[in-house]
Amino acid sequence: MATETKFAPGLEGVIAAETAISLLDTEQEKIVIKGQDLIELSKEKGYLDIVHLLLEDSLPNDAERAALEEKLKERYDVPAAIIDILKLLPPHTHPMDGMRTGLSALAGYDEHLLDRSPEVNRDRAYDLLAKLPTITVNSYRILKKQEPVLPRKDLSYSANFLYMITGEVPTEEQAKIFDRSLLLYSEHEMPNSTFTARVIASTQSDLFGALTGAVASLKGHLHGGANEAVMYMLNEVDSVAAFEELLLKKLQRKEKIMGFGHRVYMRKMDPRALMMKESLKKLCEAKGDYRLLEMCEAGEEVMRTEKGLYPNLDYYAAPVYWLLGIPIELYTPIFFSARTVGLSAHVIEQHENNRLFRPRVHYIGEKY
Amino acid sequence: MATETKFAPGLEGVIAAETAISLLDTEQEKIVIKGQDLIELSKEKGYLDIVHLLLEDSLPNDAERAALEEKLKERYDVPAAIIDILKLLPPHTHPMDGMRTGLSALAGYDEHLLDRSPEVNRDRAYDLLAKLPTITVNSYRILKKQEPVLPRKDLSYSANFLYMITGEVPTEEQAKIFDRSLLLYSEHEMPNSTFTARVIASTQSDLFGALTGAVASLKGHLHGGANEAVMYMLNEVDSVAAFEELLLKKLQRKEKIMGFGHRVYMRKMDPRALMMKESLKKLCEAKGDYRLLEMCEAGEEVMRTEKGLYPNLDYYAAPVYWLLGIPIELYTPIFFSARTVGLSAHVIEQHENNRLFRPRVHYIGEKY
Repeated sequence: MATETKFAPGLEGVIAAETAISLLDTEQEKIVIKGQDLIELSKEKGYLDIVHLLLEDSLPNDAERAALEEKLKERYDVPAAIIDILKLLPPHTHPMDGMRTGLSALAGYDEHLLDRSPEVNRDRAYDLLAKLPTITVNSYRILKKQEPVLPRKDLSYSANFLYMITGEVPTEEQAKIFDRSLLLYSEHEMPNSTFTARVIASTQSDLFGALTGAVASLKGHLHGGANEAVMYMLNEVDSVAAFEELLLKKLQRKEKIMGFGHRVYMRKMDPRALMMKESLKKLCEAKGDYRLLEMCEAGEEVMRTEKGLYPNLDYYAAPVYWLLGIPIELYTPIFFSARTVGLSAHVIEQHENNRLFRPRVHYIGEKY
Repeated sequence: MATETKFAPGLEGVIAAETAISLLDTEQEKIVIKGQDLIELSKEKGYLDIVHLLLEDSLPNDAERAALEEKLKERYDVPAAIIDILKLLPPHTHPMDGMRTGLSALAGYDEHLLDRSPEVNRDRAYDLLAKLPTITVNSYRILKKQEPVLPRKDLSYSANFLYMITGEVPTEEQAKIFDRSLLLYSEHEMPNSTFTARVIASTQSDLFGALTGAVASLKGHLHGGANEAVMYMLNEVDSVAAFEELLLKKLQRKEKIMGFGHRVYMRKMDPRALMMKESLKKLCEAKGDYRLLEMCEAGEEVMRTEKGLYPNLDYYAAPVYWLLGIPIELYTPIFFSARTVGLSAHVIEQHENNRLFRPRVHYIGEKY
């Protein structure tokens, strides 16, 4: 038998890859993306800046950012057959499954699928970044028996995404808040979906396959599904007192409460959650109604006092998306769409310096 | 920073799960499935026996095996919309991608998708085992502009699968050889695709999602694609001498030669390859033409002498499938279809005793 290493369930604490893309620096509680602090970036920069940073290794100047946005707009259109495929899905289909099927089918249009060079992979990533908002929104709309919506090239990338979701052109502030949420969701070291994408890519499978697997991973309640779970919980009640009571009851029944804590950093609030909380404040202010903010803050207090747990990004993303008028079932698909750039960067890196993932097991079955 | 463990690229030698399903016993060079030796089983038992062993924890008696086959036959039919979706895929689509899209779309028909209990998962696995041969064959046929073929319930499970592939009712010997190949492909501890399925399932995502990711993994040339690569290589030449020369040239050019060696056991021939070599002999005998066997044996000799490498299952599966009249592009989809039972057993086990996979990275990027 091979020498057995100590078994860490869920590979907790195990180093699974060398990467130059990002790190959760648990000591400084920083999210480092290509040497930069994601939170600092989120104050000054937009989603497309991070896309450029992740795929081209540098922040863009104004001309580069404009060229990137133009490139994406040129590739917005999704083949008509993809829309027809989505129309054939049974109405019972989960929006993440619709997205997964659309993404999987899209592979057939790639004429260079066997080419896994960084250049072709990067071009493929841009294509997906251009088309995923359209696929995300339309797979949901079609499942809801609504007419497909076409992208609008006169709006910015993020404003168009939000417009397709709500059917209304967003205000500048709404577009900015949505753009920042995409930026905060863009990349986060090695969560399950990123790990899934790298494991698949390591067989020399292509970007479409790696991302299809990542959609399946992100769908799970212990991963991307958390932002939706938070909103359903907030919607169960309608006052601060009732929300506190609900959380205490759930804690008493030992139910898992989504939106709090993180495997890797937990000693204080997720810095991304702090940024989203700021966005929530702005949206409450614009609406003249602070109920959701007050409920969330009260929930934060309950969880800190009772469990010593702090909110993660999903906890504050949920009410922000709610106030932006986004249907709850789209929260996870939007998360995936935003994360596509981070996932693509990891697949490119895996293909460039590959070693097939093939771990061992500890056999606890019948003797032989 | 968390304590860093030593980094093993590709998680080589790292224990990633506790499992009661199977083990590659590298000391005894045995493949252990639920306490039984897969090779011994392959001499006496058939594919459906292994299905029962993997999903019900025991080998079936005659009545149980018959009941299992009946259950699968009752569920052969695939919803018409799935066939329509396959028809919409661009003709350029890879058969594994067609299969992935069909499998992904099928999720929408599962009315209990959120139920991940072992009972419901097991029932779902039977449904997939029943439908995957139909999806496998028809996604290929449709992409080749052929009419879809319907399953025949008067044939055994494996005979029907082979009939759908070739369009001809197989002889008893052909059906038995094909059945044994499915058995040998059914389960193999923790290869990349099984690992992918468990990683995805650990987010509490469902069996369809886990298997969709596994198709993407198996498609890669370093994994399931190897059996196809072997056959293309055998078809490059038409004599023993020319095949030896081809291999020597490839070795000189330091090209990777598929079908040899294995990350986990390599000290002698893959025991599954030995069984397949027996099948190859029988098929050559029936044909009265030993060319493919002689070429393969000569290749075995070259690789042992030059590289100290031994054939794996894919090396002998390729010529066996060729002589059974199976189109090369279906080798990997068939591998996946056979492995569905092993993958399902792993997903059931992961859901029963779950811990989210979330490893760490070693950051080698820009300083900050």
